[in-house]
Amino acid sequence: MSKRWPFISFGIPDELFIRGKVPMTKEEVRAVVMSKLRLNKDSVLADVGAGTGSVSIEAALHATEGYIYSIEYKAEAIALIEENKRAFGADNINIIAGRGAEALKGIPAFDRIFIGGSDGELAELIKIASDRLPEEGRLVLTTVTIENLYHAMAELKQRGFEAIEVVALGISKGRSTGKYTLMAAQNSINIISAMKGASK
Amino acid sequence: MSKRWPFISFGIPDELFIRGKVPMTKEEVRAVVMSKLRLNKDSVLADVGAGTGSVSIEAALHATEGYIYSIEYKAEAIALIEENKRAFGADNINIIAGRGAEALKGIPAFDRIFIGGSDGELAELIKIASDRLPEEGRLVLTTVTIENLYHAMAELKQRGFEAIEVVALGISKGRSTGKYTLMAAQNSINIISAMKGASK
Amino acid sequence: MSKRWPFISFGIPDELFIRGKVPMTKEEVRAVVMSKLRLNKDSVLADVGAGTGSVSIEAALHATEGYIYSIEYKAEAIALIEENKRAFGADNINIIAGRGAEALKGIPAFDRIFIGGSDGELAELIKIASDRLPEEGRLVLTTVTIENLYHAMAELKQRGFEAIEVVALGISKGRSTGKYTLMAAQNSINIISAMKGASK
Amino acid sequence: MSKRWPFISFGIPDELFIRGKVPMTKEEVRAVVMSKLRLNKDSVLADVGAGTGSVSIEAALHATEGYIYSIEYKAEAIALIEENKRAFGADNINIIAGRGAEALKGIPAFDRIFIGGSDGELAELIKIASDRLPEEGRLVLTTVTIENLYHAMAELKQRGFEAIEVVALGISKGRSTGKYTLMAAQNSINIISAMKGASK
Repeated sequence: MSKRWPFISFGIPDELFIRGKVPMTKEEVRAVVMSKLRLNKDSVLADVGAGTGSVSIEAALHATEGYIYSIEYKAEAIALIEENKRAFGADNINIIAGRGAEALKGIPAFDRIFIGGSDGELAELIKIASDRLPEEGRLVLTTVTIENLYHAMAELKQRGFEAIEVVALGISKGRSTGKYTLMAAQNSINIISAMKGASK
Repeated sequence: MSKRWPFISFGIPDELFIRGKVPMTKEEVRAVVMSKLRLNKDSVLADVGAGTGSVSIEAALHATEGYIYSIEYKAEAIALIEENKRAFGADNINIIAGRGAEALKGIPAFDRIFIGGSDGELAELIKIASDRLPEEGRLVLTTVTIENLYHAMAELKQRGFEAIEVVALGISKGRSTGKYTLMAAQNSINIISAMKGASK
Repeated sequence: MSKRWPFISFGIPDELFIRGKVPMTKEEVRAVVMSKLRLNKDSVLADVGAGTGSVSIEAALHATEGYIYSIEYKAEAIALIEENKRAFGADNINIIAGRGAEALKGIPAFDRIFIGGSDGELAELIKIASDRLPEEGRLVLTTVTIENLYHAMAELKQRGFEAIEVVALGISKGRSTGKYTLMAAQNSINIISAMKGASK
Repeated sequence: MSKRWPFISFGIPDELFIRGKVPMTKEEVRAVVMSKLRLNKDSVLADVGAGTGSVSIEAALHATEGYIYSIEYKAEAIALIEENKRAFGADNINIIAGRGAEALKGIPAFDRIFIGGSDGELAELIKIASDRLPEEGRLVLTTVTIENLYHAMAELKQRGFEAIEVVALGISKGRSTGKYTLMAAQNSINIISAMKGASK
């Protein structure tokens, strides 16, 4: 592992990631997402809409005997994932340049999938996940809109996923203004997780 | 490691812990707490007011070359920590039966401290943490009251802690009622974290 | 007006209502609902799923030259509305015993509608509201489920409502426990409001 | 009353106020604040740190036989209150140019006080309110900081206020982005209310 993160086994602070203007899953959300993914040491994760790669990196440092596919189509974001991969020495990350559904189909296999951005392909991504996840494989997705929250829940039920869980996370963070600490709110985010059931 | 949690490296679901009536840090809160603790493989954590031991267990499974002191004075809770320690095969947990401040003084050394319950000893616990944490050691505490939130912030500033951060976490969880998913709220919890600064 | 509420023009505290076991729109939610209804002195409000009648009562005390139809089918709730009507001297309340959509059709006219409980009839209630509200008439509805939130938004758009607004209200209330004030959360509630547009 | 708000008796939408860059109590918060003030028709309200005057205006339209003192020291805000007073025809508003505590002392009498901004004078404002409010007079204050939340609660208890209540209000509002509705969070605000007890 590189010098950037040599010493800590969990909970990489946001400021250690190389960012730019690409939106990043925030530290606290990432912690809950990681928790819901329930990674094994040898898990293979498909990270769809990987952004800066913060979830990919943290997953890579956990699943040290596993493998991460970071799917992203924006050039700026791909460059950041490259940089972060190098900085954290996360050699088990494989960056796939391409659109979510299309790129996902090209991956040989995965037993975990995180959908941080679906870009209009939500239903299709869930369908592919349903087709390709092994039994007890896990899907985690985040959404901030009323419509995707509803459709994700409906789609997961229809595709026979089990243990479907939705958590709405509201986070406020203290911002110091001299003597005072103002609690500044972030937008609430919905974290949906589910398990691939046994095929019948 | 035991059969209870043989296969997953992070994010133990609440239902896998042996509980009883002792209050437990919930899954999502635990994920953020773990993230803020920024454990090393060889961290030594003092878990003050350990309750069912859920934070101790998860920390023990991370800091595999480190050590966890689980401080708790209630007999019922101590029994649960014992049971959970055995079930998860967390041999690096040392249960200390006793009141927080008193018991904390008896621990040889620690570089991480989590205060999940302070039971009127908040200021004293922070003082001891300040005295005994090494430079860059980390303190994390949770509180649900207006008074402890204020006093913890004031005390940490006064004791010269650095990078003091407060996150208010509001969690709602979907509860299925046939066709509908009701979002049921949990009480908001404040997670305060800080780093021991260089002594001057 | 009766002795129960002789002196205050807005903001009836929850404890002044006669309740029982019927769920009641809480004080803070009621304040926002009332605000979104934008009642005139002579407004005619249909209160669908009136429960204890708390919204009806407060609206009746505002729209002193108007009229409130409180629609409710549960006998226990109807009895409570009767009692509250008497206690607050709200003579301009007309209690309609019956199911929402069916009862709503029987009301001669209304320019405001509040749907606090839809009981499976959400789409039909919005359709009737759309058909019968005059131009610039207002609809307010509350929901706590993912499904009704989505369907209400979709239905209102489809029926040509304007100025559709959704507010998610998260409320925590201090509970004193001796020296400490614990912030206890209520379930988050979605308050949707909209205006009937001009017919084309 | 002016043409600006001739027809609605409660719940003035934010966009009807003349603003500028002065911070304004938002619609939903104003609704709850108004509710907690429990105005009578003849209430006399001191509005400390009146800002754009939105609370003053709404209170003035309710307490039609009462009187509002709008205390504000910033020239820009005073000008806005003047404009809003004129636009809404709220002749029962008296604008007092000056600092909170100093200006408050100069008011002949009041039975309601709203402290929307305390600007370092929180303890003194509560003391004056305690000295001058009549029995059963009401105080409402809003704060967004950890420190003022704590100090306000402590001060109110010490001054013998009764029925002290704190409500933390978290508001997210839907923002339409084509097909999607993103829930955008506002900072959580604490609304504290209390009643002047009987003097002993």
